[in-house]
Amino acid sequence: MSICVTLDIEGVLLPELWTALADHTGEDAFRRTTTEEGDIAVLMHDRLAAARAMGLTRSWITAALTDVMPFAGAVEFLQAIRGRWPTILVSDTFNEMISVVSHKLIWPTIFCHSLQFDNEGILVGYRLRQHDQKPKVVTALRSAGFRIMAAGDSLNDIGMLRSADAGAFINAPAAIRRSHPDLPGFETYGTLFAFFEEAAERLEVLESSSIGRLGVFQC
Amino acid sequence: MSICVTLDIEGVLLPELWTALADHTGEDAFRRTTTEEGDIAVLMHDRLAAARAMGLTRSWITAALTDVMPFAGAVEFLQAIRGRWPTILVSDTFNEMISVVSHKLIWPTIFCHSLQFDNEGILVGYRLRQHDQKPKVVTALRSAGFRIMAAGDSLNDIGMLRSADAGAFINAPAAIRRSHPDLPGFETYGTLFAFFEEAAERLEVLESSSIGRLGVFQC
Repeated sequence: MSICVTLDIEGVLLPELWTALADHTGEDAFRRTTTEEGDIAVLMHDRLAAARAMGLTRSWITAALTDVMPFAGAVEFLQAIRGRWPTILVSDTFNEMISVVSHKLIWPTIFCHSLQFDNEGILVGYRLRQHDQKPKVVTALRSAGFRIMAAGDSLNDIGMLRSADAGAFINAPAAIRRSHPDLPGFETYGTLFAFFEEAAERLEVLESSSIGRLGVFQC
Repeated sequence: MSICVTLDIEGVLLPELWTALADHTGEDAFRRTTTEEGDIAVLMHDRLAAARAMGLTRSWITAALTDVMPFAGAVEFLQAIRGRWPTILVSDTFNEMISVVSHKLIWPTIFCHSLQFDNEGILVGYRLRQHDQKPKVVTALRSAGFRIMAAGDSLNDIGMLRSADAGAFINAPAAIRRSHPDLPGFETYGTLFAFFEEAAERLEVLESSSIGRLGVFQC
């Protein structure tokens, strides 16, 4: 069985990191996230302007995020998924932020962007790993022989969910779910896991019907 | 910086699992590995014939592999790599074997094949995730915007090492290294890590020179 799972992180496994930064610094410009604005360039323009105005440093960011905790049940859910299928977290977060807390998720593989700091350590820019990476990662993994199951909660996840063989919302805001009524949506890890198990069975049947192509050998 | 590391597992991070199976069962047919034979179909033909003759079950395999330990320093090396770059283990091992010990490597993301058992639990076949997957995974990850650094020890790693932006042997038998004198080779995790760090710096310079394409934005 050759399935790979791709998951969003913020809003799915742990709280929005920019919101935690807003809480810690009191800067409301950090409060908007991909649940409200799907264009990361728009979000980052406002975030960087605020960061420069306040002199936001990398160590300040680290301090603000140190106490961020995964949602209740998130680690157990992620471990259950990782125990069944290779799993990659694909996120529009930034390495310098998520790395503060990734040990709390037991070091999953994460594809994300990076921040840039000036010589005084102040946040001045960012580098996208790849434009619109989420559906592109799905396409790339498919080219490596995988069928993909995916979950996310935000506008920037839609492309990934629609590119996947089985995609679903988890904890998505009602407005986003209403705009995409054909995508399944779940509110608990248990129901999402059950969706993945059912989808995997269905995909396994598909795969068994193309055995020759995929290289099954019995002695 | 958008680099992904792909690593072989057996012979690189822990001992050959089929050799451990040979030790445990006394079946010498399990002793040949990808360091001697690059064609997995040839290897598996002999392994499956022996497995069927002896009635090798999944629970016997699990018992045989339970005590396999990572090489000294392997976990620390892998954690250092994972802390720096997203890392995927790409192996011609089988899910039902490596899953017995993957917790000892702290649940890395693993792309590998799977075994098939009959109703009595006896090993009767295998399914390749993808034919010649190692170089294909490198190509797929490159299509997702990554530059790739890779390491392996065996004949079946050559394609991956040559497809990567920076590929090197670790702990490869002398005969394999002599056949590929242009590929760098290392005997310790420390020297391989230093090779990756130098390669990453070089790749970062390359990437900085193509900033527009990769989407760097400074405010």
